[in-house]
Amino acid sequence: MTLPENGRVLIVGLGLLGGSYAMALTKKGYHVSAITRDRESIDYAVSHGLIDHGSTEVEQSLIDEADAVVFALYPHVFVEWIKQYGHRLRPGVPVTDVTGVKSCVVYEVQALLPPGVEFISAHPMAGRETSGVQNSDDSIFVGANYIVVPTEQNTPEAIAWCRQFGATLGFSKISVLSPEKHDSMIAFLSQLAHAIAVSLMCANDDPDLVQYTGDSFRDLTRIANINDEMWSELFLSNRDALLAEMDTYRETFDRLYDTIKNGDREAMREMMRLSTARRRQFNKKV
Amino acid sequence: MTLPENGRVLIVGLGLLGGSYAMALTKKGYHVSAITRDRESIDYAVSHGLIDHGSTEVEQSLIDEADAVVFALYPHVFVEWIKQYGHRLRPGVPVTDVTGVKSCVVYEVQALLPPGVEFISAHPMAGRETSGVQNSDDSIFVGANYIVVPTEQNTPEAIAWCRQFGATLGFSKISVLSPEKHDSMIAFLSQLAHAIAVSLMCANDDPDLVQYTGDSFRDLTRIANINDEMWSELFLSNRDALLAEMDTYRETFDRLYDTIKNGDREAMREMMRLSTARRRQFNKKV
Repeated sequence: MTLPENGRVLIVGLGLLGGSYAMALTKKGYHVSAITRDRESIDYAVSHGLIDHGSTEVEQSLIDEADAVVFALYPHVFVEWIKQYGHRLRPGVPVTDVTGVKSCVVYEVQALLPPGVEFISAHPMAGRETSGVQNSDDSIFVGANYIVVPTEQNTPEAIAWCRQFGATLGFSKISVLSPEKHDSMIAFLSQLAHAIAVSLMCANDDPDLVQYTGDSFRDLTRIANINDEMWSELFLSNRDALLAEMDTYRETFDRLYDTIKNGDREAMREMMRLSTARRRQFNKKV
Repeated sequence: MTLPENGRVLIVGLGLLGGSYAMALTKKGYHVSAITRDRESIDYAVSHGLIDHGSTEVEQSLIDEADAVVFALYPHVFVEWIKQYGHRLRPGVPVTDVTGVKSCVVYEVQALLPPGVEFISAHPMAGRETSGVQNSDDSIFVGANYIVVPTEQNTPEAIAWCRQFGATLGFSKISVLSPEKHDSMIAFLSQLAHAIAVSLMCANDDPDLVQYTGDSFRDLTRIANINDEMWSELFLSNRDALLAEMDTYRETFDRLYDTIKNGDREAMREMMRLSTARRRQFNKKV
Protein backbone atom coordinates (compact mmCIF):
# COMPACT_ATOMS: atom_id res chain seq x y z
CA MET A 1 0.00 0.00 0.00
CA THR A 2 1.86 3.04 -1.27
CA LEU A 3 0.91 6.32 -2.85
CA PRO A 4 2.53 6.13 -6.34
CA GLU A 5 4.75 9.01 -7.41
CA ASN A 6 2.59 11.64 -9.12
CA GLY A 7 -0.40 9.56 -7.99
CA ARG A 8 -3.98 10.78 -7.65
CA VAL A 9 -5.61 11.83 -4.39
CA LEU A 10 -9.32 12.53 -4.07
CA ILE A 11 -10.30 14.97 -1.34
CA VAL A 12 -13.91 14.93 -0.21
CA GLY A 13 -14.76 18.26 1.44
CA LEU A 14 -12.82 21.28 0.28
CA GLY A 15 -12.62 23.56 3.31
CA LEU A 16 -9.59 24.99 5.07
CA LEU A 17 -8.02 21.61 5.82
CA GLY A 18 -9.03 19.90 2.57
CA GLY A 19 -7.65 22.87 0.67
CA SER A 20 -4.41 22.88 2.64
CA TYR A 21 -3.98 19.15 1.99
CA ALA A 22 -4.56 19.82 -1.72
CA MET A 23 -1.98 22.60 -1.68
CA ALA A 24 0.67 20.42 -0.01
CA LEU A 25 0.03 17.44 -2.30
CA THR A 26 -0.07 19.46 -5.53
CA LYS A 27 3.24 21.11 -4.63
CA LYS A 28 4.75 17.62 -4.32
CA GLY A 29 3.59 16.60 -7.79
CA TYR A 30 0.47 14.63 -6.90
CA HIS A 31 -2.71 15.08 -8.88
CA VAL A 32 -5.52 16.20 -6.63
CA SER A 33 -9.24 16.13 -7.36
CA ALA A 34 -12.10 17.11 -5.10
CA ILE A 35 -15.73 16.42 -4.39
CA THR A 36 -17.36 19.22 -2.43
CA ARG A 37 -20.73 20.89 -1.94
CA ASP A 38 -20.06 24.34 -3.37
CA ARG A 39 -19.13 25.06 -6.95
CA GLU A 40 -17.29 28.24 -5.84
CA SER A 41 -14.87 26.18 -3.73
CA ILE A 42 -13.97 24.02 -6.74
CA ASP A 43 -13.61 27.05 -9.00
CA TYR A 44 -11.36 28.75 -6.46
CA ALA A 45 -9.22 25.64 -5.96
CA VAL A 46 -8.82 25.02 -9.71
CA SER A 47 -8.03 28.64 -10.54
CA HIS A 48 -5.46 28.81 -7.72
CA GLY A 49 -3.80 25.57 -8.77
CA LEU A 50 -4.76 23.62 -5.65
CA ILE A 51 -6.56 20.84 -7.56
CA ASP A 52 -6.72 19.54 -11.12
CA HIS A 53 -10.49 19.23 -11.23
CA GLY A 54 -13.51 18.60 -9.05
CA SER A 55 -17.23 18.06 -8.87
CA THR A 56 -20.17 18.95 -6.66
CA GLU A 57 -21.54 15.47 -7.39
CA VAL A 58 -20.21 12.12 -6.22
CA GLU A 59 -18.82 11.20 -9.62
CA GLN A 60 -17.69 7.61 -9.89
CA SER A 61 -14.85 8.50 -12.25
CA LEU A 62 -13.20 10.62 -9.54
CA ILE A 63 -13.40 7.71 -7.12
CA ASP A 64 -12.19 5.19 -9.67
CA GLU A 65 -9.07 7.11 -10.67
CA ALA A 66 -7.97 7.88 -7.08
CA ASP A 67 -4.97 6.18 -5.43
CA ALA A 68 -6.13 7.47 -2.04
CA VAL A 69 -9.23 9.19 -0.66
CA VAL A 70 -9.19 11.81 2.11
CA PHE A 71 -12.36 12.89 3.91
CA ALA A 72 -12.20 16.44 5.24
CA LEU A 73 -15.80 16.78 6.40
CA TYR A 74 -17.58 17.53 9.67
CA PRO A 75 -17.95 14.30 11.68
CA HIS A 76 -21.67 13.74 11.08
CA VAL A 77 -21.40 14.69 7.40
CA PHE A 78 -18.56 12.19 7.01
CA VAL A 79 -20.59 9.36 8.54
CA GLU A 80 -23.61 10.27 6.41
CA TRP A 81 -21.48 10.30 3.27
CA ILE A 82 -20.15 6.82 4.04
CA LYS A 83 -23.67 5.52 4.70
CA GLN A 84 -24.83 6.85 1.36
CA TYR A 85 -21.83 6.33 -0.92
CA GLY A 86 -19.37 4.13 1.01
CA HIS A 87 -20.19 1.09 -1.15
CA ARG A 88 -18.76 2.96 -4.14
CA LEU A 89 -15.22 3.14 -2.72
CA ARG A 90 -12.70 0.76 -4.28
CA PRO A 91 -11.00 -2.10 -2.41
CA GLY A 92 -7.25 -1.65 -2.00
CA VAL A 93 -7.39 2.15 -2.11
CA PRO A 94 -6.61 3.62 1.33
CA VAL A 95 -9.20 5.94 2.87
CA THR A 96 -8.26 8.46 5.56
CA ASP A 97 -9.75 11.57 7.20
CA VAL A 98 -8.99 14.69 9.22
CA THR A 99 -11.77 14.39 11.81
CA GLY A 100 -10.99 15.97 15.18
CA VAL A 101 -12.94 13.40 17.21
CA LYS A 102 -12.44 9.69 16.77
CA SER A 103 -14.35 7.16 18.90
CA CYS A 104 -17.73 8.34 17.62
CA VAL A 105 -16.62 8.18 13.98
CA VAL A 106 -13.93 5.59 13.34
CA TYR A 107 -15.68 2.40 14.45
CA GLU A 108 -18.88 3.31 12.66
CA VAL A 109 -17.14 4.17 9.39
CA GLN A 110 -15.07 0.99 9.47
CA ALA A 111 -18.22 -1.08 10.04
CA LEU A 112 -20.02 0.59 7.13
CA LEU A 113 -17.33 0.13 4.49
CA PRO A 114 -17.40 -2.83 2.10
CA PRO A 115 -14.84 -5.64 2.48
CA GLY A 116 -11.36 -4.71 1.27
CA VAL A 117 -11.84 -0.96 1.72
CA GLU A 118 -9.60 0.01 4.63
CA PHE A 119 -10.25 3.22 6.54
CA ILE A 120 -7.21 4.40 8.50
CA SER A 121 -8.08 7.46 10.54
CA ALA A 122 -5.76 10.40 11.23
CA HIS A 123 -5.90 13.76 12.97
CA PRO A 124 -3.74 16.59 11.62
CA MET A 125 -3.10 18.84 14.65
CA ALA A 126 -3.10 22.03 12.62
CA GLY A 127 -5.65 24.68 11.81
CA ARG A 128 -6.49 28.34 11.79
CA GLU A 129 -9.22 30.56 13.18
CA THR A 130 -10.52 31.02 9.65
CA SER A 131 -12.39 28.52 7.50
CA GLY A 132 -12.97 27.87 3.82
CA VAL A 133 -10.73 26.80 0.96
CA GLN A 134 -9.81 30.46 0.33
CA ASN A 135 -7.77 30.38 3.55
CA SER A 136 -5.83 27.23 2.65
CA ASP A 137 -2.22 27.33 3.77
CA ASP A 138 0.02 24.26 3.86
CA SER A 139 2.57 26.05 6.05
CA ILE A 140 0.33 25.26 9.04
CA PHE A 141 1.68 21.69 8.88
CA VAL A 142 5.28 22.73 9.52
CA GLY A 143 6.26 21.96 13.11
CA ALA A 144 2.83 20.40 13.72
CA ASN A 145 1.75 16.97 14.95
CA TYR A 146 -0.01 14.34 12.83
CA ILE A 147 -1.68 11.55 14.75
CA VAL A 148 -2.58 8.23 13.15
CA VAL A 149 -5.55 6.68 14.99
CA PRO A 150 -5.91 2.98 14.11
CA THR A 151 -8.32 0.43 15.55
CA GLU A 152 -7.74 -3.30 15.85
CA GLN A 153 -9.29 -3.66 12.40
CA ASN A 154 -6.40 -1.84 10.74
CA THR A 155 -3.51 -3.59 9.03
CA PRO A 156 0.15 -2.70 9.69
CA GLU A 157 0.36 -1.76 6.00
CA ALA A 158 -2.38 0.86 6.28
CA ILE A 159 -0.83 2.32 9.46
CA ALA A 160 2.53 2.55 7.69
CA TRP A 161 0.86 4.13 4.64
CA CYS A 162 -0.86 6.74 6.81
CA ARG A 163 2.34 7.65 8.67
CA GLN A 164 4.03 8.17 5.32
CA PHE A 165 1.08 10.23 4.11
CA GLY A 166 1.43 12.58 7.12
CA ALA A 167 5.12 13.01 6.36
CA THR A 168 4.32 13.71 2.70
CA LEU A 169 1.92 16.46 3.78
CA GLY A 170 4.79 18.11 5.64
CA PHE A 171 3.97 17.33 9.27
CA SER A 172 6.97 17.41 11.59
CA LYS A 173 5.96 14.73 14.06
CA ILE A 174 3.94 11.60 13.35
CA SER A 175 2.57 9.48 16.15
CA VAL A 176 -0.01 6.76 16.75
CA LEU A 177 -2.82 6.71 19.34
CA SER A 178 -5.93 4.60 19.99
CA PRO A 179 -9.27 6.37 19.38
CA GLU A 180 -10.00 6.49 23.12
CA LYS A 181 -6.59 7.87 24.09
CA HIS A 182 -6.82 10.36 21.24
CA ASP A 183 -10.21 11.63 22.38
CA SER A 184 -9.17 12.12 25.98
CA MET A 185 -5.98 13.90 24.89
CA ILE A 186 -7.82 16.13 22.46
CA ALA A 187 -10.48 16.93 25.07
CA PHE A 188 -7.77 18.41 27.26
CA LEU A 189 -5.34 19.95 24.78
CA SER A 190 -7.80 21.34 22.28
CA GLN A 191 -11.45 21.31 23.33
CA LEU A 192 -10.94 22.41 26.94
CA ALA A 193 -8.63 25.17 25.72
CA HIS A 194 -11.33 26.41 23.36
CA ALA A 195 -14.01 26.14 26.07
CA ILE A 196 -11.83 28.28 28.38
CA ALA A 197 -11.20 30.94 25.76
CA VAL A 198 -14.90 31.15 24.86
CA SER A 199 -15.90 31.39 28.53
CA LEU A 200 -13.39 34.13 29.24
CA MET A 201 -14.52 36.12 26.24
CA CYS A 202 -18.18 35.80 27.27
CA ALA A 203 -17.51 36.73 30.90
CA ASN A 204 -17.07 40.48 30.53
CA ASP A 205 -19.00 42.87 28.31
CA ASP A 206 -17.08 46.08 29.11
CA PRO A 207 -16.39 47.62 25.68
CA ASP A 208 -13.47 49.65 27.10
CA LEU A 209 -11.38 46.53 27.73
CA VAL A 210 -10.05 46.56 24.19
CA GLN A 211 -8.17 49.77 24.91
CA TYR A 212 -6.16 48.31 27.75
CA THR A 213 -5.42 44.81 26.65
CA GLY A 214 -1.96 43.31 26.37
CA ASP A 215 -0.50 40.39 24.46
CA SER A 216 -1.17 37.91 27.27
CA PHE A 217 -4.91 38.31 26.93
CA ARG A 218 -4.72 38.38 23.14
CA ASP A 219 -2.76 35.12 23.01
CA LEU A 220 -5.00 33.41 25.52
CA THR A 221 -8.18 34.31 23.66
CA ARG A 222 -6.94 33.90 20.08
CA ILE A 223 -9.01 30.72 19.74
CA ALA A 224 -12.12 32.46 21.16
CA ASN A 225 -12.63 33.42 17.52
CA ILE A 226 -14.26 30.10 16.78
CA ASN A 227 -16.29 28.36 14.07
CA ASP A 228 -19.44 27.67 16.09
CA GLU A 229 -20.88 25.14 13.66
CA MET A 230 -17.80 22.94 13.70
CA TRP A 231 -16.81 23.30 17.34
CA SER A 232 -20.28 22.72 18.78
CA GLU A 233 -20.30 19.45 16.86
CA LEU A 234 -16.79 18.53 18.07
CA PHE A 235 -17.75 19.33 21.69
CA LEU A 236 -20.92 17.24 21.55
CA SER A 237 -19.23 14.36 19.68
CA ASN A 238 -16.70 14.05 22.49
CA ARG A 239 -18.96 15.05 25.33
CA ASP A 240 -17.96 12.62 28.09
CA ALA A 241 -14.23 13.10 27.65
CA LEU A 242 -14.62 16.88 27.47
CA LEU A 243 -16.84 17.11 30.55
CA ALA A 244 -14.31 15.01 32.49
CA GLU A 245 -11.46 17.38 31.53
CA MET A 246 -13.61 20.42 32.35
CA ASP A 247 -14.32 18.97 35.80
CA THR A 248 -10.64 18.41 36.55
CA TYR A 249 -9.68 21.86 35.30
CA ARG A 250 -12.39 23.51 37.39
CA GLU A 251 -11.19 21.71 40.51
CA THR A 252 -7.69 23.05 39.87
CA PHE A 253 -9.01 26.56 39.20
CA ASP A 254 -10.94 26.38 42.49
CA ARG A 255 -7.80 25.28 44.29
CA LEU A 256 -5.96 28.35 43.01
CA TYR A 257 -8.99 30.50 43.91
CA ASP A 258 -8.82 29.24 47.49
CA THR A 259 -5.12 30.07 47.83
CA ILE A 260 -5.95 33.66 46.85
CA LYS A 261 -9.02 33.87 49.06
CA ASN A 262 -7.15 32.43 52.04
CA GLY A 263 -4.00 34.44 51.39
CA ASP A 264 -2.03 31.17 51.23
CA ARG A 265 0.89 32.57 49.31
CA GLU A 266 3.11 29.51 49.60
CA ALA A 267 0.48 27.16 48.13
CA MET A 268 -0.15 29.69 45.35
CA ARG A 269 3.55 29.92 44.51
CA GLU A 270 3.77 26.13 44.53
CA MET A 271 1.09 25.95 41.83
CA MET A 272 2.83 28.68 39.84
CA ARG A 273 6.15 26.84 40.02
CA LEU A 274 4.53 23.58 38.89
CA SER A 275 2.83 25.46 36.06
CA THR A 276 6.11 27.06 35.00
CA ALA A 277 8.03 23.78 35.05
CA ARG A 278 5.37 21.97 33.02
CA ARG A 279 4.87 24.78 30.53
CA ARG A 280 8.55 24.82 29.67
CA GLN A 281 8.18 21.29 28.30
CA PHE A 282 5.67 22.57 25.76
CA ASN A 283 7.91 25.05 23.99
CA LYS A 284 8.00 24.44 20.27
CA LYS A 285 10.98 22.57 18.93
CA VAL A 286 11.13 23.14 15.21
CA MET B 1 7.03 69.98 34.52
CA THR B 2 8.99 68.62 31.56
CA LEU B 3 11.81 66.18 31.08
CA PRO B 4 14.62 68.36 29.66
CA GLU B 5 16.31 67.21 26.47
CA ASN B 6 19.23 64.93 27.38
CA GLY B 7 17.92 65.10 30.95
CA ARG B 8 18.65 62.63 33.74
CA VAL B 9 16.37 59.81 34.80
CA LEU B 10 16.95 57.73 37.93
CA ILE B 11 15.52 54.21 37.84
CA VAL B 12 15.08 52.45 41.16
CA GLY B 13 14.93 48.69 40.60
CA LEU B 14 16.80 47.34 37.61
CA GLY B 15 14.83 44.28 36.51
CA LEU B 16 13.25 43.49 33.17
CA LEU B 17 11.05 46.59 33.09
CA GLY B 18 13.55 48.97 34.71
CA GLY B 19 16.16 47.78 32.24
CA SER B 20 13.82 48.14 29.27
CA TYR B 21 12.97 51.69 30.39
CA ALA B 22 16.70 52.42 30.64
CA MET B 23 17.25 51.03 27.14
CA ALA B 24 14.48 53.16 25.62
CA LEU B 25 15.58 56.35 27.40
CA THR B 26 19.29 55.93 26.67
CA LYS B 27 18.52 55.41 22.98
CA LYS B 28 16.68 58.74 23.00
CA GLY B 29 19.67 60.59 24.46
CA TYR B 30 18.68 60.74 28.11
CA HIS B 31 21.17 59.98 30.85
CA VAL B 32 20.00 57.10 32.96
CA SER B 33 21.27 56.08 36.39
CA ALA B 34 20.04 53.28 38.61
CA ILE B 35 19.75 52.22 42.21
CA THR B 36 19.26 48.48 42.59
CA ARG B 37 20.01 45.65 45.00
CA ASP B 38 22.48 43.61 42.98
CA ARG B 39 25.88 44.80 41.82
CA GLU B 40 25.71 42.37 38.84
CA SER B 41 22.62 44.12 37.48
CA ILE B 42 24.43 47.47 37.51
CA ASP B 43 27.55 46.00 35.94
CA TYR B 44 25.48 44.38 33.22
CA ALA B 45 23.52 47.57 32.52
CA VAL B 46 26.64 49.75 32.40
CA SER B 47 28.60 47.36 30.19
CA HIS B 48 25.66 47.01 27.79
CA GLY B 49 25.14 50.76 27.58
CA LEU B 50 21.73 50.76 29.25
CA ILE B 51 22.76 53.20 32.02
CA ASP B 52 25.56 55.68 32.70
CA HIS B 53 26.17 54.59 36.25
CA GLY B 54 24.45 53.13 39.28
CA SER B 55 24.70 52.13 42.90
CA THR B 56 23.51 49.39 45.24
CA GLU B 57 23.12 52.10 47.90
CA VAL B 58 20.57 54.91 48.04
CA GLU B 59 23.12 57.57 47.11
CA GLN B 60 21.84 61.10 47.56
CA SER B 61 23.86 62.36 44.58
CA LEU B 62 21.88 60.10 42.21
CA ILE B 63 18.62 61.48 43.59
CA ASP B 64 19.84 65.08 43.50
CA GLU B 65 20.93 65.02 39.88
CA ALA B 66 17.74 63.33 38.55
CA ASP B 67 15.11 65.20 36.53
CA ALA B 68 12.68 62.31 37.06
CA VAL B 69 12.57 59.17 39.20
CA VAL B 70 11.00 55.85 38.12
CA PHE B 71 10.31 53.05 40.59
CA ALA B 72 10.37 49.59 39.02
CA LEU B 73 10.05 47.51 42.18
CA TYR B 74 7.64 44.90 43.50
CA PRO B 75 4.66 46.64 45.15
CA HIS B 76 5.63 45.98 48.78
CA VAL B 77 9.30 46.79 48.15
CA PHE B 78 8.25 50.08 46.54
CA VAL B 79 6.13 51.08 49.56
CA GLU B 80 8.92 50.07 51.94
CA TRP B 81 11.46 52.12 49.98
CA ILE B 82 9.23 55.20 50.16
CA LYS B 83 8.75 54.73 53.89
CA GLN B 84 12.48 54.56 54.42
CA TYR B 85 13.85 57.02 51.87
CA GLY B 86 10.87 58.99 50.53
CA HIS B 87 11.86 62.11 52.48
CA ARG B 88 15.05 62.27 50.42
CA LEU B 89 13.21 62.84 47.10
CA ARG B 90 13.33 66.39 45.78
CA PRO B 91 10.29 68.66 45.36
CA GLY B 92 9.46 69.51 41.76
CA VAL B 93 10.99 66.31 40.36
CA PRO B 94 8.26 63.98 39.07
CA VAL B 95 8.13 60.46 40.50
CA THR B 96 6.45 57.59 38.64
CA ASP B 97 6.37 53.78 38.76
CA VAL B 98 5.53 50.62 36.81
CA THR B 99 3.53 48.80 39.47
CA GLY B 100 0.90 46.39 38.14
CA VAL B 101 -1.58 47.00 40.99
CA LYS B 102 -2.62 50.48 42.01
CA SER B 103 -5.18 51.04 44.80
CA CYS B 104 -3.02 49.32 47.40
CA VAL B 105 0.06 51.33 46.44
CA VAL B 106 -0.76 54.75 45.02
CA TYR B 107 -2.65 56.34 47.92
CA GLU B 108 -0.15 55.11 50.48
CA VAL B 109 2.88 56.34 48.53
CA GLN B 110 1.28 59.75 47.91
CA ALA B 111 0.50 60.09 51.63
CA LEU B 112 4.09 59.19 52.59
CA LEU B 113 5.88 61.65 50.30
CA PRO B 114 6.99 65.07 51.54
CA PRO B 115 5.16 68.22 50.33
CA GLY B 116 6.03 69.21 46.78
CA VAL B 117 7.07 65.71 45.70
CA GLU B 118 4.41 64.54 43.29
CA PHE B 119 3.96 60.85 42.58
CA ILE B 120 2.08 60.16 39.34
CA SER B 121 1.50 56.46 38.90
CA ALA B 122 1.58 54.59 35.60
CA HIS B 123 1.24 51.01 34.37
CA PRO B 124 3.15 50.00 31.25
CA MET B 125 1.13 47.11 29.77
CA ALA B 126 4.17 45.28 28.47
CA GLY B 127 6.29 42.45 29.72
CA ARG B 128 7.82 39.09 29.01
CA GLU B 129 7.82 35.67 30.62
CA THR B 130 11.43 36.24 31.61
CA SER B 131 12.80 38.50 34.30
CA GLY B 132 16.03 40.34 35.08
CA VAL B 133 17.87 43.22 33.46
CA GLN B 134 19.63 40.76 31.13
CA ASN B 135 16.33 40.27 29.31
CA SER B 136 15.67 43.98 28.81
CA ASP B 137 14.05 44.79 25.47
CA ASP B 138 12.46 48.13 24.68
CA SER B 139 10.70 46.69 21.62
CA ILE B 140 8.05 45.31 24.01
CA PHE B 141 6.65 48.86 24.23
CA VAL B 142 5.84 49.05 20.52
CA GLY B 143 2.11 48.58 19.96
CA ALA B 144 1.55 48.39 23.72
CA ASN B 145 -0.67 50.36 26.10
CA TYR B 146 0.60 52.77 28.75
CA ILE B 147 -1.91 53.70 31.42
CA VAL B 148 -1.52 56.81 33.58
CA VAL B 149 -3.27 56.26 36.93
CA PRO B 150 -3.78 59.56 38.75
CA THR B 151 -5.64 60.24 41.99
CA GLU B 152 -7.39 63.46 42.96
CA GLN B 153 -4.10 64.57 44.51
CA ASN B 154 -2.41 64.79 41.13
CA THR B 155 -1.98 68.01 39.16
CA PRO B 156 -2.86 68.34 35.47
CA GLU B 157 0.82 69.15 34.89
CA ALA B 158 1.98 65.83 36.33
CA ILE B 159 -0.62 63.91 34.36
CA ALA B 160 0.51 65.65 31.17
CA TRP B 161 4.15 64.96 32.06
CA CYS B 162 3.43 61.26 32.59
CA ARG B 163 1.53 60.92 29.30
CA GLN B 164 4.49 62.47 27.53
CA PHE B 165 6.88 60.15 29.37
CA GLY B 166 4.93 57.10 28.12
CA ALA B 167 5.16 58.41 24.57
CA THR B 168 8.90 59.02 25.01
CA LEU B 169 9.35 55.39 26.10
CA GLY B 170 7.77 54.30 22.82
CA PHE B 171 4.30 53.18 23.89
CA SER B 172 1.71 53.29 21.12
CA LYS B 173 -1.37 54.13 23.15
CA ILE B 174 -1.54 56.30 26.25
CA SER B 175 -4.66 56.44 28.38
CA VAL B 176 -5.78 57.51 31.84
CA LEU B 177 -7.70 55.48 34.44
CA SER B 178 -8.53 55.82 38.13
CA PRO B 179 -6.76 53.36 40.48
CA GLU B 180 -10.02 51.49 41.11
CA LYS B 181 -10.98 51.20 37.46
CA HIS B 182 -7.40 50.17 36.63
CA ASP B 183 -7.41 47.40 39.23
CA SER B 184 -10.70 45.93 38.10
CA MET B 185 -9.60 46.05 34.46
CA ILE B 186 -6.24 44.47 35.22
CA ALA B 187 -7.88 41.78 37.36
CA PHE B 188 -9.82 40.65 34.30
CA LEU B 189 -7.40 41.23 31.44
CA SER B 190 -4.18 40.18 33.10
CA GLN B 191 -4.52 38.45 36.45
CA LEU B 192 -7.50 36.26 35.58
CA ALA B 193 -5.77 35.28 32.33
CA HIS B 194 -2.69 34.21 34.29
CA ALA B 195 -4.82 32.35 36.85
CA ILE B 196 -6.52 30.44 34.03
CA ALA B 197 -3.25 29.49 32.35
CA VAL B 198 -1.72 28.32 35.64
CA SER B 199 -4.82 26.27 36.50
CA LEU B 200 -4.91 24.61 33.10
CA MET B 201 -1.22 23.74 33.30
CA CYS B 202 -1.65 22.25 36.79
CA ALA B 203 -4.75 20.26 35.84
CA ASN B 204 -3.11 17.41 33.91
CA ASP B 205 0.13 15.61 34.69
CA ASP B 206 0.23 13.30 31.66
CA PRO B 207 3.82 13.63 30.35
CA ASP B 208 2.75 12.43 26.89
CA LEU B 209 0.67 15.56 26.24
CA VAL B 210 3.68 17.46 24.98
CA GLN B 211 3.88 15.16 21.95
CA TYR B 212 0.40 15.98 20.75
CA THR B 213 -0.01 19.64 21.49
CA GLY B 214 -0.91 22.26 18.91
CA ASP B 215 -0.48 26.02 18.74
CA SER B 216 -3.84 26.71 20.40
CA PHE B 217 -2.73 25.15 23.64
CA ARG B 218 0.73 26.69 23.40
CA ASP B 219 -0.68 30.18 22.94
CA LEU B 220 -3.23 29.80 25.69
CA THR B 221 -0.64 28.63 28.20
CA ARG B 222 2.27 30.85 27.21
CA ILE B 223 1.79 32.90 30.38
CA ALA B 224 1.66 29.76 32.53
CA ASN B 225 5.43 30.21 32.56
CA ILE B 226 5.18 32.69 35.40
CA ASN B 227 7.37 34.52 37.93
CA ASP B 228 5.81 33.11 41.11
CA GLU B 229 7.36 35.69 43.44
CA MET B 230 5.98 38.65 41.51
CA TRP B 231 2.61 37.24 40.50
CA SER B 232 1.67 35.85 43.91
CA GLU B 233 2.22 39.37 45.24
CA LEU B 234 0.18 40.95 42.43
CA PHE B 235 -2.66 38.45 43.00
CA LEU B 236 -2.75 39.11 46.75
CA SER B 237 -2.40 42.88 46.35
CA ASN B 238 -5.51 42.93 44.17
CA ARG B 239 -7.35 40.13 45.89
CA ASP B 240 -10.93 41.42 45.97
CA ALA B 241 -11.00 42.56 42.36
CA LEU B 242 -9.37 39.31 41.18
CA LEU B 243 -11.74 37.07 43.15
CA ALA B 244 -14.71 38.97 41.71
CA GLU B 245 -13.45 38.42 38.15
CA MET B 246 -12.72 34.75 38.89
CA ASP B 247 -16.28 34.33 40.16
CA THR B 248 -17.80 35.82 37.02
CA TYR B 249 -15.57 33.79 34.75
CA ARG B 250 -16.41 30.58 36.58
CA GLU B 251 -20.13 31.26 36.23
CA THR B 252 -19.66 31.66 32.49
CA PHE B 253 -17.54 28.51 32.28
CA ASP B 254 -20.27 26.62 34.15
CA ARG B 255 -22.86 27.97 31.75
CA LEU B 256 -20.88 26.59 28.80
CA TYR B 257 -20.40 23.32 30.71
CA ASP B 258 -24.16 22.99 31.09
CA THR B 259 -24.80 23.52 27.38
CA ILE B 260 -22.46 20.59 26.67
CA LYS B 261 -23.87 18.39 29.42
CA ASN B 262 -27.45 19.08 28.32
CA GLY B 263 -26.67 18.81 24.62
CA ASP B 264 -28.06 22.33 24.15
CA ARG B 265 -26.29 23.00 20.89
CA GLU B 266 -28.06 26.26 20.10
CA ALA B 267 -27.12 27.86 23.44
CA MET B 268 -23.55 26.65 22.96
CA ARG B 269 -23.35 28.15 19.48
CA GLU B 270 -24.80 31.39 20.82
CA MET B 271 -21.91 31.66 23.31
CA MET B 272 -19.39 30.82 20.59
CA ARG B 273 -20.81 33.50 18.30
CA LEU B 274 -20.69 36.09 21.11
CA SER B 275 -17.13 35.04 21.87
CA THR B 276 -16.14 35.33 18.21
CA ALA B 277 -17.73 38.76 17.77
CA ARG B 278 -16.06 40.12 20.92
CA ARG B 279 -12.68 38.60 20.23
CA ARG B 280 -12.51 40.26 16.83
CA GLN B 281 -12.47 43.63 18.58
CA PHE B 282 -9.25 42.68 20.31
CA ASN B 283 -7.12 42.15 17.23
CA LYS B 284 -3.94 44.20 17.37
CA LYS B 285 -3.90 47.42 15.42
CA VAL B 286 -0.31 48.54 15.05
